[in-house]
Amino acid sequence: MKETAPHILCAGPWTLLLPEFTAAKHLCGHKGQLKISWLLFVFFSSDIEISRAQSPKAVDVLAKEIGLLTDEVEIYGQTKAKVRLSLLERLKDQPDGKYVLVAGITPTPLGEGKSTVTIGLVQALTAHLNINSFACLRQPSQGPTFGVKGGAAGGGYAQVIPMEEFNLHLTGDIHAITAANNLLAAAIDARILHENTQSDKALYNRLVPVVNGVRGFSAIQLARLRRLGISKTDPGTLTEEEINKFARLDIDPSTITWQRVVDTNDRFLRKITVGQANTEKGFVRQAQFDIAVASEIMAILALTTSLQDMKERLGKMVVANDKKGEPITAEDLGVTGALAVLMKDAIKPTLMQTLEGTPVFVHAGPFANIAHGNSSVLADKIALKLVGEKGFVVTEAGFGADIGMEKFFNIKCRASGLVPSVVVLVATVRALKMHGGGPNVTAGAPLKKEYTEENLQLVADGCCNLQKQIQITQLFGVPVVVALNVFKTDSPAEIDLVCKIAKQSGAFDAVPCNHWSAGGRGAVKLAQAVERAANQKNNFKYLYSLELPIVEKIRIIAQKVYGAQDIELSPTAQSQVDRYTRQGFGNLPICMAKTHLSLSHQPERKGVPTGFILPISDVRASIGAGFIYPLVGTMSTMPGLPTRPCFYDIDLDPITEQVKGLF
Amino acid sequence: MKETAPHILCAGPWTLLLPEFTAAKHLCGHKGQLKISWLLFVFFSSDIEISRAQSPKAVDVLAKEIGLLTDEVEIYGQTKAKVRLSLLERLKDQPDGKYVLVAGITPTPLGEGKSTVTIGLVQALTAHLNINSFACLRQPSQGPTFGVKGGAAGGGYAQVIPMEEFNLHLTGDIHAITAANNLLAAAIDARILHENTQSDKALYNRLVPVVNGVRGFSAIQLARLRRLGISKTDPGTLTEEEINKFARLDIDPSTITWQRVVDTNDRFLRKITVGQANTEKGFVRQAQFDIAVASEIMAILALTTSLQDMKERLGKMVVANDKKGEPITAEDLGVTGALAVLMKDAIKPTLMQTLEGTPVFVHAGPFANIAHGNSSVLADKIALKLVGEKGFVVTEAGFGADIGMEKFFNIKCRASGLVPSVVVLVATVRALKMHGGGPNVTAGAPLKKEYTEENLQLVADGCCNLQKQIQITQLFGVPVVVALNVFKTDSPAEIDLVCKIAKQSGAFDAVPCNHWSAGGRGAVKLAQAVERAANQKNNFKYLYSLELPIVEKIRIIAQKVYGAQDIELSPTAQSQVDRYTRQGFGNLPICMAKTHLSLSHQPERKGVPTGFILPISDVRASIGAGFIYPLVGTMSTMPGLPTRPCFYDIDLDPITEQVKGLF
Repeated sequence: MKETAPHILCAGPWTLLLPEFTAAKHLCGHKGQLKISWLLFVFFSSDIEISRAQSPKAVDVLAKEIGLLTDEVEIYGQTKAKVRLSLLERLKDQPDGKYVLVAGITPTPLGEGKSTVTIGLVQALTAHLNINSFACLRQPSQGPTFGVKGGAAGGGYAQVIPMEEFNLHLTGDIHAITAANNLLAAAIDARILHENTQSDKALYNRLVPVVNGVRGFSAIQLARLRRLGISKTDPGTLTEEEINKFARLDIDPSTITWQRVVDTNDRFLRKITVGQANTEKGFVRQAQFDIAVASEIMAILALTTSLQDMKERLGKMVVANDKKGEPITAEDLGVTGALAVLMKDAIKPTLMQTLEGTPVFVHAGPFANIAHGNSSVLADKIALKLVGEKGFVVTEAGFGADIGMEKFFNIKCRASGLVPSVVVLVATVRALKMHGGGPNVTAGAPLKKEYTEENLQLVADGCCNLQKQIQITQLFGVPVVVALNVFKTDSPAEIDLVCKIAKQSGAFDAVPCNHWSAGGRGAVKLAQAVERAANQKNNFKYLYSLELPIVEKIRIIAQKVYGAQDIELSPTAQSQVDRYTRQGFGNLPICMAKTHLSLSHQPERKGVPTGFILPISDVRASIGAGFIYPLVGTMSTMPGLPTRPCFYDIDLDPITEQVKGLF
Repeated sequence: MKETAPHILCAGPWTLLLPEFTAAKHLCGHKGQLKISWLLFVFFSSDIEISRAQSPKAVDVLAKEIGLLTDEVEIYGQTKAKVRLSLLERLKDQPDGKYVLVAGITPTPLGEGKSTVTIGLVQALTAHLNINSFACLRQPSQGPTFGVKGGAAGGGYAQVIPMEEFNLHLTGDIHAITAANNLLAAAIDARILHENTQSDKALYNRLVPVVNGVRGFSAIQLARLRRLGISKTDPGTLTEEEINKFARLDIDPSTITWQRVVDTNDRFLRKITVGQANTEKGFVRQAQFDIAVASEIMAILALTTSLQDMKERLGKMVVANDKKGEPITAEDLGVTGALAVLMKDAIKPTLMQTLEGTPVFVHAGPFANIAHGNSSVLADKIALKLVGEKGFVVTEAGFGADIGMEKFFNIKCRASGLVPSVVVLVATVRALKMHGGGPNVTAGAPLKKEYTEENLQLVADGCCNLQKQIQITQLFGVPVVVALNVFKTDSPAEIDLVCKIAKQSGAFDAVPCNHWSAGGRGAVKLAQAVERAANQKNNFKYLYSLELPIVEKIRIIAQKVYGAQDIELSPTAQSQVDRYTRQGFGNLPICMAKTHLSLSHQPERKGVPTGFILPISDVRASIGAGFIYPLVGTMSTMPGLPTRPCFYDIDLDPITEQVKGLF
């Protein structure tokens, strides 16, 4: 059948319905475009109050405004929709927009506002400069939402709304990942038990039963036979040896790297013993739960480019070795199809909107320290088509540029083939003062006076971290604009100083931003700087060649990005490197698991640490996602609940159905 | 403000858009109403193929047809929607429809088709007799979907469609329950750790911190102070003793009854040890995961009547005792609001449709053996308003009438105040033959010839179980119609025999049904019998008074329903009964955890066992859900994966996005 020509959207400037600030009408009598002011901010003091004071437009209206066809959108309630991947085929001849990455300096534990800058920037571009733009954010984990951190929808007047929808179940992607991850985990242990308690024959008879008088292999079993070099298709004709090869995966329990996950900060699951019920016949083993967003399936969701590609990646995930040291995959366990079925809706990005009515994709997950921490390739690709050639897609990489951005370039851009136009590097006076030698900054504790009063010396001293992160960005050949996320306690002299040093350090521009208090209007100068930078010459390059040995790639990241003197592998790490190299996984990019609180592996070392030897304690492999995963020092993959978790302030009004206390 | 009169829907007969069987058009040229035949069945041999051959109408169209207003519906994709509870207020003056419960005889492990009867019955009522009707089903657990059982959407030509949506994440209710359940579990262990490692003062300072220079109790903390009899509101004025009382819950870890859950058949989590990481400082303890649908939060979802009621029930859940033997609740842990927030969307029933385009609510969960296993009170209540006075709501109780139906009457009807009009008791020739002494019936194994050839003696002998289940129904004073779910191997003589014995045993009527092969058309006679029975005099009564002691209530169920000679409590069970009675929980109804495979506690005892002493091994309490939960013998609350789980046959076509192999 001849293909019909695809319907191409000619992406001119969108005519977005920009909402008024609902409560502002009464207070200020403003009409039309969003007007906000400090006056209003006095009335709406918390993020959720600001979010609630603005009525989002219906998501089907938004979808239509940005050129989505009805059958490309799956509505989830009034304010969320999933977007179907078929759009990529329809718009395949449409040129991509400009691709902007928001990264940051080494943050304090309070965060420096990358999400608010991302939102502020798209609000400025689209609601104030009439340029199409899309923000691509990561779905927050519910663990920290109820733990220490709170929500992640941005804040103040630069938010995704409704923020409670963004911060809670959203459209169920993380739940789907959890379900798929844990089905695979259950399949591993159950299979070991069944192999250990049955003869080859019994095992084979159960794996290939007679159904309605007929005995046959399933499609997934035929694929396993082919991998084993057995070309037979009649179950009755296998030799005893072939039956043994087919029916026994012979998993070595001590090599299992696949862990269970839960999207809850449950510290008591960091190390557990499973299989202690009598029914498991003594096959106990030590295991752990990770936070759900650390699952390899989350990384696959972020990096995949199609349903076919996702299914292949899911099948390739290595979960353990057999007793001969060969890798065991999800495909060997027969569960690839089920995992793909569980993930079939999660692969579609979720459409939401900013406080100023501009479009946002929320897709894939956070945690650039223990995961790769970037939003999804698919969301970025779809958004780049929708904004059109003159539009902008602003995507975010977690934590400091040394981890989130490094992974964005070396892992995500490799998977997508996309070339970024500009990096926006977010800094705050608060974090710079910390790097300059200011006292500790701790979540939940009041800030010391160094952070609330002018202190130019601390700022000047701390700019070394900003300078280093600018240099890291320049390693990749992409222009960098520094966005100084202004707090009300920052003095004009402090602000000027940061911008001056940033430009001296090689930034294309450095701009103070007031999006938190003023919405998109407060980020117009940033948007203009980004637009100019996007027209600069771009010499984008990866940091290392995939062909290099694993250890070499780790060393390049450690030395060139983190500033380490060298790396040191533990014996475990070295033997894992040897194993993965032998198994043919040596040519993958590297996803470092490193603290986000320092350029080094030691969270307390601020500024620009030097002379350190980076300890690689272990090396794992995410073969489906497509990266090698070295652990730097001790990295927890499961956060905990503090004495007074966020949930103490969270409540639901049963009459209005409104959520209170999320921030 | 004066309330305006509610807009009342005058529920006349709905004009439903009854879909043609998509693929049938070509084959048979039928128009209008669904026409199906054995011919078609040859073409579509599996449930998912039949499901897929029928295009569901858009759910917003369905919602409009049944009288829902636009703002009462939250669309989730093309085929699912959540319905807002505000409808109950709008229609509060509308008379309820007739309320029909579908229960069953003691089943084989293959199930006897209660879901297909439920669907077939509403298809007959609405698509063939033009009477408004609603089916209220339970959401299946994903565990068994990928384990042994497969899906639960009905089957053949009596299905909920699309069946893959029904069987997978649906609208995320079970995921929400899992998240809420596990947040509470994490909070319990974390709190014990924090109390064990901090002084009263440190604990108090962390629980009531200074924020922006101000120190205050949160709303949930003020409520705790009031429960402790402390009327102070200024954190600075508490005495040391009051600080100790406030800050220390003093949970006795050996009394924790709150378990973590996962919606996966993960047998290795049946008994585990948690807290083995160094960060948990040696506070290890033995724990377990249950399947998610066994969570008390699922029972609350099923039994709650409003958001306010749900929040109160969540707060009242008892999770452990303190060292003085007093109950510790979710409210004591400060997590009630967060749990309610996580459950705020799950409380809304999900609207779907049958293969013949009639409406279905899917809400709350399965497992009438280890849970109460009924669909939700809210779904039933909303449906009863929507169908109008002459309409029918058909709801389903899990497994045999001895467990699902007994709990429906004694627990669910007590919570809802609703009075059922008719019980439909589902039987199959296959199950009756098993009760008559036929060979074992095992999932996955081929059926013996006794089940595929006529055997009137086995049927006659096995009707004792049917007779007993009819008698159980009559204990509650509600007319019973027996629905014989006909298989193609049943002979006319077998069918006649069952119907004759059923009527002799006191059934109002007994009708063979062919909905599986013929859709609603095959259940028209059942529908007519149900309609007649609904006009019978109804003497509905509960089986026991709540005022009776716990042990007495258990004994009444054991003797009158199961036919036990007596009960025998283990010392653990007795001490739990004493504790719950002392704690003031003695006046709750009883939710027995008992095998569904026999009227007794021994699955192998078929027919009508007599002379047995029912062993009560343990007694738990679900105070939020509102019942006492005795465990009969050994009941597993976590299914396992067999050697060859269902997932071997499940696959996703990456091009068409179609799911294969779900059944």
